[in-house]
Amino acid sequence: MLEAYAERYRRDLVDAVIPFWLRHALDHEHGGYFTCLDRDGTVYDPRKYMWLQGRAVWMFARLYRELAPRDEWLAAARLGVDFIRRYGRDAEGRIFFSLTREGQPFFFQRKPYAAVFVQMGLFEYGLATGDQACLDEAVALFWRIVAWIEQPTLLGRPVLPGQVAVSQLADRLVVGMMALELARQLDDPRYDEVLRATVAGVLRHYDPAHRVFREVVAHDGRDLTALPEGRLFSPGHTIETVWILLQMLARNPDAQAQQVAFTALAGALELGWDTQYDGLFYFMDLAGRPTLQLEATMKLWWPHAEAIYALVLAYTLTREAHWLTWLERVDRYTYTHFVDPVHGEWFGYCDRRGDLALTSKGGNYKGFFHVPRALLFSLQAIDRMRD
Amino acid sequence: MLEAYAERYRRDLVDAVIPFWLRHALDHEHGGYFTCLDRDGTVYDPRKYMWLQGRAVWMFARLYRELAPRDEWLAAARLGVDFIRRYGRDAEGRIFFSLTREGQPFFFQRKPYAAVFVQMGLFEYGLATGDQACLDEAVALFWRIVAWIEQPTLLGRPVLPGQVAVSQLADRLVVGMMALELARQLDDPRYDEVLRATVAGVLRHYDPAHRVFREVVAHDGRDLTALPEGRLFSPGHTIETVWILLQMLARNPDAQAQQVAFTALAGALELGWDTQYDGLFYFMDLAGRPTLQLEATMKLWWPHAEAIYALVLAYTLTREAHWLTWLERVDRYTYTHFVDPVHGEWFGYCDRRGDLALTSKGGNYKGFFHVPRALLFSLQAIDRMRD
Repeated sequence: MLEAYAERYRRDLVDAVIPFWLRHALDHEHGGYFTCLDRDGTVYDPRKYMWLQGRAVWMFARLYRELAPRDEWLAAARLGVDFIRRYGRDAEGRIFFSLTREGQPFFFQRKPYAAVFVQMGLFEYGLATGDQACLDEAVALFWRIVAWIEQPTLLGRPVLPGQVAVSQLADRLVVGMMALELARQLDDPRYDEVLRATVAGVLRHYDPAHRVFREVVAHDGRDLTALPEGRLFSPGHTIETVWILLQMLARNPDAQAQQVAFTALAGALELGWDTQYDGLFYFMDLAGRPTLQLEATMKLWWPHAEAIYALVLAYTLTREAHWLTWLERVDRYTYTHFVDPVHGEWFGYCDRRGDLALTSKGGNYKGFFHVPRALLFSLQAIDRMRD
Repeated sequence: MLEAYAERYRRDLVDAVIPFWLRHALDHEHGGYFTCLDRDGTVYDPRKYMWLQGRAVWMFARLYRELAPRDEWLAAARLGVDFIRRYGRDAEGRIFFSLTREGQPFFFQRKPYAAVFVQMGLFEYGLATGDQACLDEAVALFWRIVAWIEQPTLLGRPVLPGQVAVSQLADRLVVGMMALELARQLDDPRYDEVLRATVAGVLRHYDPAHRVFREVVAHDGRDLTALPEGRLFSPGHTIETVWILLQMLARNPDAQAQQVAFTALAGALELGWDTQYDGLFYFMDLAGRPTLQLEATMKLWWPHAEAIYALVLAYTLTREAHWLTWLERVDRYTYTHFVDPVHGEWFGYCDRRGDLALTSKGGNYKGFFHVPRALLFSLQAIDRMRD
C-alpha cells in the first residue's frame, strides 16, 4: 500500500513540483530565486526573500545528493548560493530578510530564521560539491545562530522588563534541524550534545493534558497560560516537531521521548483536525479562546505536507495501521485541495471550508521547501522500509 | 429614512457598545483597558496595547464632550490617561506597543501608530477636562510623530539601500486625523497647512483607473506596480480616507478634491464588495494577483463601520439616493454578520462567506474605537442634516 504512495509522491516531485520551480523561480539575469509565483508561475513580486533562497538551495542540493545527481539541480542550487554569498549578508554577517531583485538590501528582520535557512543551504551545497569554504561558512553561521537565539539583542531586538524569557518551539526545531545535518556529517561530539539538549528542550514544550507541543513555554517553567502565546497550538508545528524529534532520537535513542513523539502526533491530528470541514487548522487556542491570529482557521499546505511525512515515518517505524488510516485522510485532503493538476506544485492557502483563498504557488513564506522535502523524505522512508 | 438609522445607531452605541466596554475593559486594579475580550467579555490576554489605550481614551473623552457629559465616561477616559502617562513611554518619550497588565514594557514597535492614538487620546482628554498639561503633551507629541513618519530611523527602523522612499496611505490618514482635531481647537495656522499638505498627499495615492486610493506610492512618483504593495488596495482604508478627506475639505474647500473623494467612495465599494458572498474584502491586488496577506478575503468589522459613516456623510453632503442604496446594503450586512445581539458590541472577523472566524470582540488590533466612532459620527451627521 505504501508503495503506491511512494510512486505517486515521486511522480509529483519529479514531474510536477521540481519542474514548476525550475521553470519559473530561477532568475538567470540577477541570480537567486523568485518565490512569489502565481498559479501559472507568473512572478508577482520580484524580491528575493532570504530564508526562501536558503531553503531552495538546500532542497536543490539535497535532491542532487540524494535523489539523482542531475546537473540541472546542482546548477539551480549554485544560482542561489552565489546570490546569497554576494548579497545576502550585512557587514556584520547577519542575514537580510529580503533584497530587491538585483540584490540590494530591502528589509532586515530581528529574527534568526533567514540565517537558519541560509546556513542549511550553504551546508548542503557544500556537501553536494565538496566546496570547503561553504561548509566552513555554514559551521560558523550555525554557532552564531545558536548565540542569536540565546541573545536576541544581538539581532537588535531589545529585551524589555515586562517580557518573560521564553523558549519558542520554532527555535528548538530549527536548531534541531541544523544540528542533525551537522552531526551526521562532521566528526564533532558537540552536535550530538546540541541534539540531546534540543530533545530535552522540545520535551519541555510537551503538554500531556492536550498531547501536543505548546508553541511557547517559559524558560523557568512558570505558567504562561494567561497569555495567548502560552496557550497557542499550531498543529503543523507539533507534527513537524514529531518527525524532527524522531530523527534526533534515531541518533540518540530514548524510548520515553519516542513515546511522547508518537503520542503528540496522534494528539495533534486529533485536536488539530477540523471535524466539520476536514483539514488541519493553522492555529488553535488550547483553552478554546480566540487566537490573535486572524488566519487561525485557514488550511495551509505546509501542515499537511508535514503530516504526510510524519505519518509515513511513524508507520515505517511502528507498522501500526492507525497511522495509515490518518495518512489516507491527510493525503486525500491534500491531493484534492492543494495539489494543482494543471500547472504543477501545490497551492498554499485555503479557507476553513477548503476553498482556495489565494491562487499563489509561492510567496514570501512559501517557496521550494515544504512540499519537495515532504515528498522526498516520504519516498525515502518508504524505500528504506522496503529494503 | 436616515432618522431610523440614527435612532438604531444611537441605541447600539449607548445601550450595547459602550456598556460592553465599560463592563469588561476597565482594569480598576492596574489601570488602563483590557482589549482582548471574548464574546462575553472574558479577558483572554491581559496585556495593555498602547494604541488601543489611546483610542479608548479618545473615544470615552469624545463621547463625554459630544454625546453626553456622563461622569462614568470621563472616569473611564481618566483610567487610560493615567496609565498612559505613568507607563506608556520610554525614556526618550517614544510610545511602547504593549505593556504587561501591570504596566511593564513588553514590546516596542518601530512604527508611529501607538503614538498617534496616544496623541489623540491625550488631546481629547485635555479638551474634555481643560487639563492644559495634557493638551501641551499632545501638541508636542504631534510634531514628534510628524518627524517620526518623515524619518523612520528615529524609531530605530533602518533605511536600507534597496528601499524606495514611499508614502503610506495610513501615514497620511493619521496625520490628517490628528491635524483635524488640532486645527479645530487651536488658533495656529500650521495645522491647516498640514491639512492642505495632507490633502495633496492623499490625492497622490489616487488611482483614477481603479477609482481607489493605493496603499503605497513612491515619493518621487515612480511606478511601484511591480511590487505587491504598489498594487495593494484596502477597501476599508480607501473608504476611511474618503471621510477624512471630506472632513479636511470642509475646512479648506476644494471642489475637485471633493469629487475625487466621492468617486473613490463609489469606486472602493464597487471594487471592494464581494459580489459572490457580500461584504467588503480586507485586501485586494489591483492587478488581480495574489496578495501577500493570507487574510485578504476575510470580512472585517472596521471596513464596514467606516463605510457606514462614509455613506451617511456622503448622503448628508449630496442628498444623492445611490449613497442610501449602498448604506442599506452595508448596514444590512453589518447588522446580520458582526453585531452581537446577546452580549453587545460587534464581532470582528468573518471569513469570506461571512461565517464567524473568531469569537473575539476585541484583540490587539480591535478596541473601543471604530465601532463607537462610526456610530457617533453617523448619528451626529444625521442630526446636523436635520437641524
